[in-house]
Amino acid sequence: MNASSPPPPDTVFDWLDAEATKRADAGLTRRLRPRPAQPDELDLAGNDYLGLARDKRVAGSAAAAALRWGAGATGSRLVTGSTELHAELEHELARFCGAQAALVFSSGFAANLGAVTALSGAESAIVSDKYVHASLIEGCRLSRADVAAVAHADPEAVRHALATRRKPRALVVTESIFSVDGDAAALGEVHGICREHGAALLVDDAHGLGVLGEGGRGAVHAAGLSAAPDVVTTCTLSKALGAQGGAVIGPRRVIRHLVETARSFIFDTALAPASAAAALAALGVLKSEPDLPAKAIDNAANLAMHLKAAGLRTTLPEAAVISVRAPSPEAAFGWAEACAEQGIRVACFRPPSVPDGVSRLRLTARANLTESDVDRAVKVLTATAPRGAAA
Amino acid sequence: MNASSPPPPDTVFDWLDAEATKRADAGLTRRLRPRPAQPDELDLAGNDYLGLARDKRVAGSAAAAALRWGAGATGSRLVTGSTELHAELEHELARFCGAQAALVFSSGFAANLGAVTALSGAESAIVSDKYVHASLIEGCRLSRADVAAVAHADPEAVRHALATRRKPRALVVTESIFSVDGDAAALGEVHGICREHGAALLVDDAHGLGVLGEGGRGAVHAAGLSAAPDVVTTCTLSKALGAQGGAVIGPRRVIRHLVETARSFIFDTALAPASAAAALAALGVLKSEPDLPAKAIDNAANLAMHLKAAGLRTTLPEAAVISVRAPSPEAAFGWAEACAEQGIRVACFRPPSVPDGVSRLRLTARANLTESDVDRAVKVLTATAPRGAAA
Ligand SMILES: Cc1ncc(COP(=O)(O)O)c(C=O)c1O
Ligand SMILES: Cc1ncc(COP(=O)(O)O)c(C=O)c1O
Repeated sequence: MNASSPPPPDTVFDWLDAEATKRADAGLTRRLRPRPAQPDELDLAGNDYLGLARDKRVAGSAAAAALRWGAGATGSRLVTGSTELHAELEHELARFCGAQAALVFSSGFAANLGAVTALSGAESAIVSDKYVHASLIEGCRLSRADVAAVAHADPEAVRHALATRRKPRALVVTESIFSVDGDAAALGEVHGICREHGAALLVDDAHGLGVLGEGGRGAVHAAGLSAAPDVVTTCTLSKALGAQGGAVIGPRRVIRHLVETARSFIFDTALAPASAAAALAALGVLKSEPDLPAKAIDNAANLAMHLKAAGLRTTLPEAAVISVRAPSPEAAFGWAEACAEQGIRVACFRPPSVPDGVSRLRLTARANLTESDVDRAVKVLTATAPRGAAA
Repeated sequence: MNASSPPPPDTVFDWLDAEATKRADAGLTRRLRPRPAQPDELDLAGNDYLGLARDKRVAGSAAAAALRWGAGATGSRLVTGSTELHAELEHELARFCGAQAALVFSSGFAANLGAVTALSGAESAIVSDKYVHASLIEGCRLSRADVAAVAHADPEAVRHALATRRKPRALVVTESIFSVDGDAAALGEVHGICREHGAALLVDDAHGLGVLGEGGRGAVHAAGLSAAPDVVTTCTLSKALGAQGGAVIGPRRVIRHLVETARSFIFDTALAPASAAAALAALGVLKSEPDLPAKAIDNAANLAMHLKAAGLRTTLPEAAVISVRAPSPEAAFGWAEACAEQGIRVACFRPPSVPDGVSRLRLTARANLTESDVDRAVKVLTATAPRGAAA
């Protein structure tokens, strides 16, 4: 491709505009819309399931930590970035979830990259539910393993892939609560199949921690698997815990291995002290208010029930995530816009962010929604529903 | 691999212990060592080049933002995570660096993943310096491009790879200041070669921003390339800016494309408000104290000169990173330990974190080092040098 006269430099990125035009034609343009500190909208889009991001105990701990420890951690965890605060958070997270140990990453995305790549390799097969989160998919693609993406929520497909694998080691990868539709994996059954086939199980509990299980201990704890020697949990500190960051939770030797080999841990600046302190404070709130998670779940169930009763194609939530189908990407976008005009923020999920290609609204419930919030949401969503949205 | 009787579950991770033993035998074990809030060591290991992580203006802004905006951003940037604070930081970063636009990610690692994957693809060739940071390498591996990792700091190797590529589009990837040795890429020359071959240039300025260029505007600005239509800069907010997070800086259409396609942007919770505010405050400090970066550079030059004069195999720094060779991984580790016992924290870099396989101490200078800090460091490093460390 050594062209005799090179193209003008300002044409080098022309292909980006061509792709933008294609997305626009398909109704898939996305734009950032910065929000103010105190939006007067009702938020049914964020993942702050317990309303802790703005809780004074949580935000106050973040503020105090920035002043005490500095705004940044100054280095990677293996150099200068590990503070006693990180160590305390890891200790508390492991204890809270009933596991031996935990390791904090700068995001849930990074935790997933690190866990999947470090716990597999050229001698491993990975069997992954095909609807898992992008960060798990990227982890699979970075691993040197044989990767089988199997049918969604289908334990028999996992069994078949494990039984027919060509590699001695195996890692099964799933979410506990799937992020788009809010449906749940059959963790106990999948784990039983792992056991039969000598496979390890990695569960991303991003949408389960703080919401499901005794006092919010998560879906893995609820399934009785948090102390299992062959189970590893990943999670994020950015949803129910209201902060930022991610973690891997599991057997001590897994955590030690990640410290020494996970590239997204080693080559990344440590989580900011303020975020670590916020997550730690959120765990404290959960311990002192063990009934908080049930409120989020009740609100979600209530909201979904009413939407369904109103004729919308609504999932019945297993945790705090609800999905409502829309007839097209354009209809989903217009619906979300119409809700926003009426003061209700819902998320619009369109390809390529939906594993099944179906556009929908994604709604989340929070522990601190009131009955009148739920009523209003149902009214607005119903009134603004596009043609073809009803079941 | 459907064994008739499956292995006991607690043996599933036995292979991790076997790998740990191999690392131990090679002298490559790594352990976390949590530090207190106010270590009494002299820090020559962190990347807080301007000493801003603990600066009252920076840490104070982080604290205020946590209280005002919440501890976490509550969602991804395209859902609820974009605040006016993120938008302001992006505006200021672009302006500071002299580019059209910027996009903030949750880490520099995520920014590199996003930029490399979204700006390449199946029709692209990537030509990457083989010593680039792990996050850029992972980006290359996740891309669907033809990847050529070429000889370190060798513009002719870049030219050859571009001239012989099989794909129409091309992206050249380099660091400005390489993170391990602190040496500099010949940005102007590499960019000229990109122009001759119709390639885009991506420069990771993680160790240049806040240190090099007019008032700390970075190595890309210093090379006169920050407004070029075919150049994209990535950076981190976690080093000279003392916070956490990362950014991509460049032409407006590149930034728009990343918003819509970069998976590490779309599928990741937004940067915590406290970290965004800290980085913004750090830019403010840089604008009001344009001479701060030169202090870090002078301190690095001074430290390196004295270490070299003392006979140690020291690189002469282009920015604030100095590398001192050690004769073996064990010697490097022992040397760093001995320094720590004398109250000086230096980083020990061993395989696999060194691209050339050479173990060394990595030292960083800060703007706020005193002359006596430098004197003490030289004395301790010289006194503790292992046999074989001298040139
Ligand atoms: C299932 C799942 N896993 C991982 C992540 C990534 O976590 P984080 O946003 O902390 O990077 C998310 C959401 O962002 C998620 O929904
Ligand atoms: C050259 C380079 N690029 C990218 C990164 C990643 O940035 P961050 O630590 O913000 O993820 C680092 C250091 O961590 C680095 O040294």
